[in-house]
Amino acid sequence: MLFYYFDLAGVIVFAITGSLAAGKKHMDLFGALVLALVTALGGGTIRDLILDRTPIFWISDLTYIYVVVVATFIVFLVKRYAAIPRKTLIYADAFGLAIFSVLGAQIALQQGVPGLVAIIMGMLTGVAGGMIRDLFRIEIPLILQHEIYATAALAGASVYVVLSELTVFDEPVKLIVAASITLVLRLAAIKWNLSLPVFSVDENNH
Amino acid sequence: MLFYYFDLAGVIVFAITGSLAAGKKHMDLFGALVLALVTALGGGTIRDLILDRTPIFWISDLTYIYVVVVATFIVFLVKRYAAIPRKTLIYADAFGLAIFSVLGAQIALQQGVPGLVAIIMGMLTGVAGGMIRDLFRIEIPLILQHEIYATAALAGASVYVVLSELTVFDEPVKLIVAASITLVLRLAAIKWNLSLPVFSVDENNH
Amino acid sequence: MLFYYFDLAGVIVFAITGSLAAGKKHMDLFGALVLALVTALGGGTIRDLILDRTPIFWISDLTYIYVVVVATFIVFLVKRYAAIPRKTLIYADAFGLAIFSVLGAQIALQQGVPGLVAIIMGMLTGVAGGMIRDLFRIEIPLILQHEIYATAALAGASVYVVLSELTVFDEPVKLIVAASITLVLRLAAIKWNLSLPVFSVDENNH
Repeated sequence: MLFYYFDLAGVIVFAITGSLAAGKKHMDLFGALVLALVTALGGGTIRDLILDRTPIFWISDLTYIYVVVVATFIVFLVKRYAAIPRKTLIYADAFGLAIFSVLGAQIALQQGVPGLVAIIMGMLTGVAGGMIRDLFRIEIPLILQHEIYATAALAGASVYVVLSELTVFDEPVKLIVAASITLVLRLAAIKWNLSLPVFSVDENNH
Repeated sequence: MLFYYFDLAGVIVFAITGSLAAGKKHMDLFGALVLALVTALGGGTIRDLILDRTPIFWISDLTYIYVVVVATFIVFLVKRYAAIPRKTLIYADAFGLAIFSVLGAQIALQQGVPGLVAIIMGMLTGVAGGMIRDLFRIEIPLILQHEIYATAALAGASVYVVLSELTVFDEPVKLIVAASITLVLRLAAIKWNLSLPVFSVDENNH
Repeated sequence: MLFYYFDLAGVIVFAITGSLAAGKKHMDLFGALVLALVTALGGGTIRDLILDRTPIFWISDLTYIYVVVVATFIVFLVKRYAAIPRKTLIYADAFGLAIFSVLGAQIALQQGVPGLVAIIMGMLTGVAGGMIRDLFRIEIPLILQHEIYATAALAGASVYVVLSELTVFDEPVKLIVAASITLVLRLAAIKWNLSLPVFSVDENNH
C-alpha cells in the first residue's frame, strides 16, 4: 500500500516535469496536460502493452489520471506566483525514476517473464516517459546523455530482480533496497557530476 | 454508416497533411506514404492497442489502407500542377480532428471503459497521428502549441461522453453535436486567433 | 533455421547502428544500450503489438537481448581502437533491412492477416527501428529521405507476399528471392545514387 502512494508520488513528479517542459515551449494548458499525461503514464503504458497486461494500469485505476490532471492545474496556477527551484525538480525526478524502475520490474516479474526481461521492463518504465517528453520538446532525451540516468534505472531494476530470487527478505525490504540504489546512484551522479565513459564517435569517422 | 464515410474522410484529410509534410522535407514517394499512413492511422492504432481491441481497425477493414495509398498518390500527382491552399488544409484538418476525437470516444465507450478514459482516448485518437507526423518532421507538434487544438478535441470527446449518458437523443445526434463542438471551437480559434492562456515558463527560472 | 541466424545478424547490424548513433551524440554506455535495443528490436516489437502476437518475440527468446547487449559492448570497446568504415555500415544496414522486411511479412502472414497488411507490416518491421533511432538523435529519419529505403523494404515484402501465394517454390526460396530484391534495390540506390522522384512542396505554397 505504501508503494502505491510512492507510485502516485512518482506520477506527480513526472506530471510536473512534463507540464513544465510544455511551459518552456509555450504550449497551452491542454497541450501541457497532454505532455504531462504522456510523461507520467507513458512508460507504464508501454510496459503494459509489451507485457500484454490488460487493462492498462490507468484504465483499471482512474486515480492515475486524476493525479496528473490535478498536478498540471496546480503547476499552471503556481507558476504565476513562484518558480519551482530546478534543484528540487531534479531530486524529485530521481525519486520518480527509482520508484518507476523498481515497481516496473516487480510488475514484469509478476507477469511471469524471465529476470532479464523484467530488468529491461523496469528500466523502460523508468525512462520511457521522460524520453517521449524530451522528444516532443525536440531535444535529445536528457536520459540518453552522460549523467547516469538509464544506468541508475538499470541498477535498481537489476538489484530488485536478484533480490526477488531470495526468500530471506520481505517484499517491502527488496523494493526499498533496490529503489534506494537507483536513487543514491542518481543523486550521487548529480551531486558529483559522475558519469560513465562517454560513447564518443567522431562524426566524420565511422 | 454516414459516420463510416466521415471517418474515411478524416483519414483522407490526415493522409494529405502527412504526405504534404513529407513533401516539405523532400522525402520520396514511399517515404511520404509511410508518413501518410502514420498520420492517418496512428492515432486509431494507439487507441486500439491501449484498449486491447483486436484486430486493429485497419487490419479488419482494408479500406483504410487503400484510402491512404490512393490519397498519397493523388497528392503526389496534383502537387506538380497546383498548390493546395493552406487555408483549405487547415479547415480540412479541423474536420478530421472533430471526427476522430468523437468517434475515438465512441469506440472507447463501446469497449466498456469509464467515461474519463473514453474522453482521453478520444482526444488521443484525434491528436496522436498529427503529433507523430510533426515529430518525424522534427518540429514541435503544432497541436501542442497555443491554438486550441488538443482543447477542441478534449471538448468534443467530453461532450460526446456526457451525451452518451442521456437516453433522450439518438446516437447520430450525439455524434453530430459533439463533433460540431470540436469543429466550431477549432475554426473559431483559427479565425479569431483564439488561444488559451499560455503555460509560460522562464527558461532560466525553474 | 538459417533464417533465424539471418534474423540475429540483422539484429546485430541494427544494434551497431543504434549504438554508433548514440556515440555521435555523446551518450553514455547505457544510453547507447537503450538506443541499440530500440533500434534493433523496435520494429519487431511494434509489429508484434499490432498483430497481437504474445509474448513479444524478444520475451519468448532471450537470445535477441543477449545479442544486442554483446554487440553494444563490442562496439564500445572496438571504437576506442578503430573506426568502423561508413561504407561497411551502410551495406550491413541494407542486409538488415532486407532480412527484417521479408521475415516481418512472413510472420504477419503466419498470423493470418491479409496480404496487403502483411506487406505493410514487413515494411514497418524493416524501417521502424531505424526511424525511432533517428528521432532520438533529433534528425529526420534517413529512411524517409530520397534514397529508396522504405521503397526497397516495400518491394521485398510485396514480392514475398506474392510468392507466398504460389506453391511452386519452397519457403526458403521465397524468402531468399524476396530479401535479395530489397538488398539489390537498396545497394543499387546507394551505389548509383538512385532515387525516386522527390515529393517536393514549396514551404510557402500549400
